[in-house]
Amino acid sequence: MSWFAWGDPERATPLSESLRDLIAQTLGAELRDLPPVDEADVRLPSSALDATARAALESAVGAEHVRTDAPARLRHSGGKSTPDLLRRRAGDADPAPDAVVLPADHDEVLAVLRACAEHRVAVVPFGGGTSVVGGVDALRGGFASVVALDLRRLDRLVSVDHESMTATLQAGLRTPEAEELLSAHGYTLGHLPQSFEYATIGGYAATRSSGQASAGYGRFDDMVMALKAATPRGSLDLGRAPASAAGPDLRQLLVGSEGTFGVITEVTLRVRPLPDVQHDEAWSFPDYATGAAALRRLAQSDARPTTARLSDETETFVNAALSGKEAAAGCLAVVGFDGTDEAEVEARRAAVTRLLTECGGTPLGTEPVSEWRHSRFHGPYLRDTLLSAGVLSETLETATTWSGVLPLYEAVSAALKEALEGPEGGVVTMCHISHTYPAGASLYFTVVTAAGADPLSRWARAKRAAGDAIAEHGGTISHHHAVGADHRPWMTSEIGPLGADILRAVKSALDPVGILNPGKLIPDGTDESTQDAHA
Amino acid sequence: MSWFAWGDPERATPLSESLRDLIAQTLGAELRDLPPVDEADVRLPSSALDATARAALESAVGAEHVRTDAPARLRHSGGKSTPDLLRRRAGDADPAPDAVVLPADHDEVLAVLRACAEHRVAVVPFGGGTSVVGGVDALRGGFASVVALDLRRLDRLVSVDHESMTATLQAGLRTPEAEELLSAHGYTLGHLPQSFEYATIGGYAATRSSGQASAGYGRFDDMVMALKAATPRGSLDLGRAPASAAGPDLRQLLVGSEGTFGVITEVTLRVRPLPDVQHDEAWSFPDYATGAAALRRLAQSDARPTTARLSDETETFVNAALSGKEAAAGCLAVVGFDGTDEAEVEARRAAVTRLLTECGGTPLGTEPVSEWRHSRFHGPYLRDTLLSAGVLSETLETATTWSGVLPLYEAVSAALKEALEGPEGGVVTMCHISHTYPAGASLYFTVVTAAGADPLSRWARAKRAAGDAIAEHGGTISHHHAVGADHRPWMTSEIGPLGADILRAVKSALDPVGILNPGKLIPDGTDESTQDAHA
Repeated sequence: MSWFAWGDPERATPLSESLRDLIAQTLGAELRDLPPVDEADVRLPSSALDATARAALESAVGAEHVRTDAPARLRHSGGKSTPDLLRRRAGDADPAPDAVVLPADHDEVLAVLRACAEHRVAVVPFGGGTSVVGGVDALRGGFASVVALDLRRLDRLVSVDHESMTATLQAGLRTPEAEELLSAHGYTLGHLPQSFEYATIGGYAATRSSGQASAGYGRFDDMVMALKAATPRGSLDLGRAPASAAGPDLRQLLVGSEGTFGVITEVTLRVRPLPDVQHDEAWSFPDYATGAAALRRLAQSDARPTTARLSDETETFVNAALSGKEAAAGCLAVVGFDGTDEAEVEARRAAVTRLLTECGGTPLGTEPVSEWRHSRFHGPYLRDTLLSAGVLSETLETATTWSGVLPLYEAVSAALKEALEGPEGGVVTMCHISHTYPAGASLYFTVVTAAGADPLSRWARAKRAAGDAIAEHGGTISHHHAVGADHRPWMTSEIGPLGADILRAVKSALDPVGILNPGKLIPDGTDESTQDAHA
Repeated sequence: MSWFAWGDPERATPLSESLRDLIAQTLGAELRDLPPVDEADVRLPSSALDATARAALESAVGAEHVRTDAPARLRHSGGKSTPDLLRRRAGDADPAPDAVVLPADHDEVLAVLRACAEHRVAVVPFGGGTSVVGGVDALRGGFASVVALDLRRLDRLVSVDHESMTATLQAGLRTPEAEELLSAHGYTLGHLPQSFEYATIGGYAATRSSGQASAGYGRFDDMVMALKAATPRGSLDLGRAPASAAGPDLRQLLVGSEGTFGVITEVTLRVRPLPDVQHDEAWSFPDYATGAAALRRLAQSDARPTTARLSDETETFVNAALSGKEAAAGCLAVVGFDGTDEAEVEARRAAVTRLLTECGGTPLGTEPVSEWRHSRFHGPYLRDTLLSAGVLSETLETATTWSGVLPLYEAVSAALKEALEGPEGGVVTMCHISHTYPAGASLYFTVVTAAGADPLSRWARAKRAAGDAIAEHGGTISHHHAVGADHRPWMTSEIGPLGADILRAVKSALDPVGILNPGKLIPDGTDESTQDAHA
């Protein structure tokens, strides 16, 4: 994985001159290349880990698993948001961890946390490093040093319970490897976020990931039947049954805790049979409102697609242009079906076809989405290509109730335009509904604009405007990207000051020294200006 | 609602002499009638609420809504477990609240909690009073006085969001009234626990209730999209979208908190269209293992019954005998379908029929379950009838993964027999699988035994044995009855000592004085003998 781009830099093809000109013209902007500096020129502060702490960590995991070399530290200095990439491309690797620690198993994670609590070293749990919300930035809080706790050695399929259709996987497994291990038993998780290639099982649980086939396979948090976590105060082993009335669901407190309460080391997940039948098809709707109403009816019906998404007019046009196809009029929806039985999939398709037709949709067959399934993880590479050419192309997302979907869509789009349009050019915003539920849906925005003279400030302004619009219109600050450092300013308005107190209380109980992922998720009590609505 | 029995005492018909003789013979026991004392003879300690606290409460809700009369105090002295009823039948109303406080709305609940925190008065939130786990026992913890906070005046349907298919209901609404209000809009919750007639919306949320149609409508905790709660430190307003990645799911921390963190005053729930078609049918399986495997396959398939339950051989026999029918051989399953479209229900039935047949089931048609839907809430009345005749007939329940279902069934049945069989007679234990999930199922046991000389101790012994067997065999201590006072001894083994620390930390953050429902749910830190397994 590249230190300045999403994944394999070989896969980021340069932008053709003609496409670059077209984008510049569309945005009405001058574009200025933003190439990365040479890795040798990256400014990396020297490691602040003192000898005593280092010895304690070496005793916990073995000397060869405490790394302080520059390449390791650089590659653990943060995630993959546009600001992350902009900073590193410009040669700035600060904040970087003072060391990267690679424990072998749950007990070694426990030992690392104990050592760090004793020696007052901050710890940033690190899975695939794919956070786009500053979730793995190597912030040290008030501590003198910080280590990245890389979980890649926790890479085993621990067990499979065929009767219960569950599998226990270690946290450091990346999705392709997890899928390979499960497929040997005939199973899949069906979890297909855009970060599929790099993100890990533990990261999905810690951040409440949601994949593109969530309509059929569910969100990651829904798949978690049990979990094991290491904290500075010991272990948590939660989940004795798929459902329980034995008090609050503490699984759902650890899931989404983003490494601030503990380090999830093992997860027991629901698995499904590998599908024998996979079918995707495209539908056209005259406009976004009609398409959204159709997806709503679908989510509230008994029809069961595996995937259901709907692009707005702009995204429909841009996606078609990018794949060299003629754009359908209006808005394009993708509906997909996974199954183990041809007849069963056919029956589900028939029900969906009936309903979408009734709701004003026109079936377009498989051709418009023939490449969708195979190119579904390509988005971040395209972002790298554009960034190198001086174009910011970043995404942000939210969710709300169905009655709030269109107002929220309008508000966020308007806020982004307002924040970005000006002397440095215009902006193209587009959006799709990516995940649907009976009561509501997520909105996934893509923003394309010239990087301008100060791209970091430019994007920060846009992000702030979008976040404020989301909070003001009752959306959640994140549907599946999580909170990290970047969404933390909106957490108090999301859960209220008392909700923030709960997070701080749980944090103190599990991590009294406060070493775990400082500066992420949990409001520090100084940013509660929006509390009135919740008082 | 009766003070010494489940509901309307008029509905508890006396046991015929012949049936009583048959039971005595089956149990090999002498039966001794256990009639209730006269209400006038119930021993009720005088109210310990001091004048200052009373004045503060009267100022919060109005003098007429602070009741200290004996009938009100007696009827709020606890729930409806067999021990609760045994105590009150014997004339013992201790613990009774010193007053019953009836706030009108969320703000009055807040005011009551502030007054109680200031004057150090314990508060027991009280909905329908149907707890069977000591959840509403008027325990005062370390405080001089305790009040029952009766939510019956919070009885409004606040709003309906037709587009999002959600409704916001106040906590004090009983199910029949909630259903009546929703049906005016064409909706239902589809929530049908045995406590349907009396239990409240807030109580369902606070205890993670699950209804008999959970296979189709889901558990109550799954239906909660948003909630509002009053705590001594202010309000919580949680849930901005059906799903979110904005940190831990605090809704799922309040849901199931049993009034120890706050008082849930309002819940926004998923609603469904009122069904036009309802169809129940019976299936026979040669034995429990075959039937359980069939229900497992059903839960892991795409077939969608609304109800799916399976009685073991004993329950199959007893149920048939009670309704004067001939018992089917082996084990009886009930499968039910609710829908709005005849063809759609037929298609679901066909899929279920195919699968259950393949799994060794024999369809028995509608006749054996023709009365099931209408008599489904009658169980507790039968318990009253038997109790009056000197027969304990109590239930307990758990859940586990599918691979654990049969071992857990055997272990709990054996533990109950071991604890109860002896000089005072035998025991009949029976069980059904009442709720199924892809990864596991619940087990609902009914225990019938002679009350004996000291029925309270006798039942306590059985309950302790069953709880230990559940904990030892990896089941959850409750699937839908909740924790209350009765299951609290097993909470530390369920969630580990660190999990118990989390509950205490959240409690301290929201209720620093500790007035809310003392003695319930949260282990007090002195009963952590079973912590080793979780260290």
